[in-house]
Amino acid sequence: TTKMKIFSLNSNQGLAEEIAQHVGLPLGKSSVTHFSDGEIQINIEESIRGYDVFIVQSTSQPVNENLMELLIMIDAVKRASARTVNVVMPYYGYARQDRKARSREPITAKLVANLLETAGATRVIALDLHAPQIQGFFDILIDHLVAVPLISDYFLKESGIDLENVIVVSPDHGGVTRARKMADRLKAPIAIIDKRRPRPNVAEVMNIIGNVEGKTAIIIDDIIDTAGTISIAASALIESGAKEVYACCTHPVLSGPAVGRINDSVIKELIITNSIALPEEKKSPKIKQLSVAKLLAETIVRVHEQKSVSTLFD
Amino acid sequence: TTKMKIFSLNSNQGLAEEIAQHVGLPLGKSSVTHFSDGEIQINIEESIRGYDVFIVQSTSQPVNENLMELLIMIDAVKRASARTVNVVMPYYGYARQDRKARSREPITAKLVANLLETAGATRVIALDLHAPQIQGFFDILIDHLVAVPLISDYFLKESGIDLENVIVVSPDHGGVTRARKMADRLKAPIAIIDKRRPRPNVAEVMNIIGNVEGKTAIIIDDIIDTAGTISIAASALIESGAKEVYACCTHPVLSGPAVGRINDSVIKELIITNSIALPEEKKSPKIKQLSVAKLLAETIVRVHEQKSVSTLFD
Ligand SMILES: Nc1ncnc2c1ncn2[C@@H]1O[C@H](COP(=O)(O)O)[C@@H](O)[C@H]1O
Ligand SMILES: Nc1ncnc2c1ncn2[C@@H]1O[C@H](COP(=O)(O)O)[C@@H](O)[C@H]1O
Repeated sequence: TTKMKIFSLNSNQGLAEEIAQHVGLPLGKSSVTHFSDGEIQINIEESIRGYDVFIVQSTSQPVNENLMELLIMIDAVKRASARTVNVVMPYYGYARQDRKARSREPITAKLVANLLETAGATRVIALDLHAPQIQGFFDILIDHLVAVPLISDYFLKESGIDLENVIVVSPDHGGVTRARKMADRLKAPIAIIDKRRPRPNVAEVMNIIGNVEGKTAIIIDDIIDTAGTISIAASALIESGAKEVYACCTHPVLSGPAVGRINDSVIKELIITNSIALPEEKKSPKIKQLSVAKLLAETIVRVHEQKSVSTLFD
Repeated sequence: TTKMKIFSLNSNQGLAEEIAQHVGLPLGKSSVTHFSDGEIQINIEESIRGYDVFIVQSTSQPVNENLMELLIMIDAVKRASARTVNVVMPYYGYARQDRKARSREPITAKLVANLLETAGATRVIALDLHAPQIQGFFDILIDHLVAVPLISDYFLKESGIDLENVIVVSPDHGGVTRARKMADRLKAPIAIIDKRRPRPNVAEVMNIIGNVEGKTAIIIDDIIDTAGTISIAASALIESGAKEVYACCTHPVLSGPAVGRINDSVIKELIITNSIALPEEKKSPKIKQLSVAKLLAETIVRVHEQKSVSTLFD
């Protein structure tokens, strides 16, 4: 049978090591360094001829650096005669630029899909893409995993909250499907936050659709970036009578003022995954990180063994 | 007739403005900003439907940032229904990674060519590519300009040196063609520096092929990066009896210790072009910058008017 090898790039080495441990293989040996002028130099230090190769890289901040690392690594792996070049992207950067919202905008999420293909990727393993339609941006194979089961399990088994009293909240209309899936697992009702701007240049108003009074509200989103919306949503829930508010997301982008806002907010705990590595300075007692390593490891093994991965998908 | 528009990205705005002035057009209006998480946001602020669009960007340091800016801009221009998408790359980053020097290396110069094509470029205008073979990496149209005439003209008309007493020096065997072209223009002989490492882990020795005694030596290269080789070469020329040493190159990468080395070296003057913008902190009384704006402007106009550009090529 074909052999496999897993390589890590620089965005998320801790996760890659964890994945390799779950799979039961050492990480492949490679080096990513920079020439004096900042150009990336990649070297693969062991033979991968005929192998199924898996490259683990999130295109999180610094996104352009991480994306170029990935593209150059794909090129090197392809030219080293790998049988398949599988890209494991726990976080897919530029996913929010997935349509022309205004005239003459790029569609960078589609560009990135094309770049990965052009470089030589034969399959992409992604997690909670900002829009599921991004799957259709690829002509190569794509597996799309979701973190709802993992996050739900945390609430069911570890959080210690009263599960009889929970309501799952979608922070916008686009997130209702995700909130519904989580609510099914927690056997809880859902509420939706309906953001409206009454007039241009007037602050948005958060209307809550659903009754949260006396409830433990759990807001679920795919990405938390600057944490502005989620902090305000949490306050709105408390004002509407919620007893306490938890928040959770798959991808902790947490840029700029995010961590300060979370710490200052009424949010009791923020549950995130390690699709994006959390640097030391962003750690907080309020933030709890769950690992997607086992989910990704299982997917990698099944892809390599050509077994179905569909049961991992929801 | 079709209209044209020139856009600048962030790597080299001064040059882009100069080009636009030569062409006699204002630069196209666009904005390149960053979202809070570092993702690039591009907006083209005027219609370019049916236009010949020229995008000026060198993929100099920060190379990955500048390259992604370029790729996203190409995508935006293409989707805005431009008739042609012409990329003006005075400096082509990653050009030195143009072959597998060792096993399992990427060929990033080829990857970059493919990425530009995939994004939607229909033509590339390049200047002194590190290897002329990189032209063959493209399936789209490519015009390859050279800076030797511009640099030679400086020595002929402005430098004030005794032209009877010049010898043009190639810093390695790969650069002989370029040195020969310059020598023809200056009606001067050439010399070649022959670097040899007598044994592994022993410093390189610089042998000079040709007689430089009493001469004004002009070393010409395409790229000066850390300036290590050029500084040592200049000393070797002086030791071999050269009266004085000038150095020149098209692309002033000048990374790391480069400017200090130039200042401390026996080099009398370093002549460079503005294919790469020289930041304030790299300026030095020893460094003289010539502009390629007129050359690029003429090329752009001829491409737009579908006239031959071949007379600009050497
Ligand atoms: N990195 C980013 N940070 C913030 N906003 C973004 C980013 N990328 C794209 N956007 C904007 O977010 C919008 C898409 O977000 P959404 O409506 O949640 O799908 C688009 O209109 C983009 O202009
Ligand atoms: N940005 C860079 N800085 C320094 N060396 C590089 C760079 N990119 C590639 N190289 C190396 O330079 C060699 C090619 O240079 P050359 O022999 O002058 O064509 C290759 O073996 C590369 O490993």
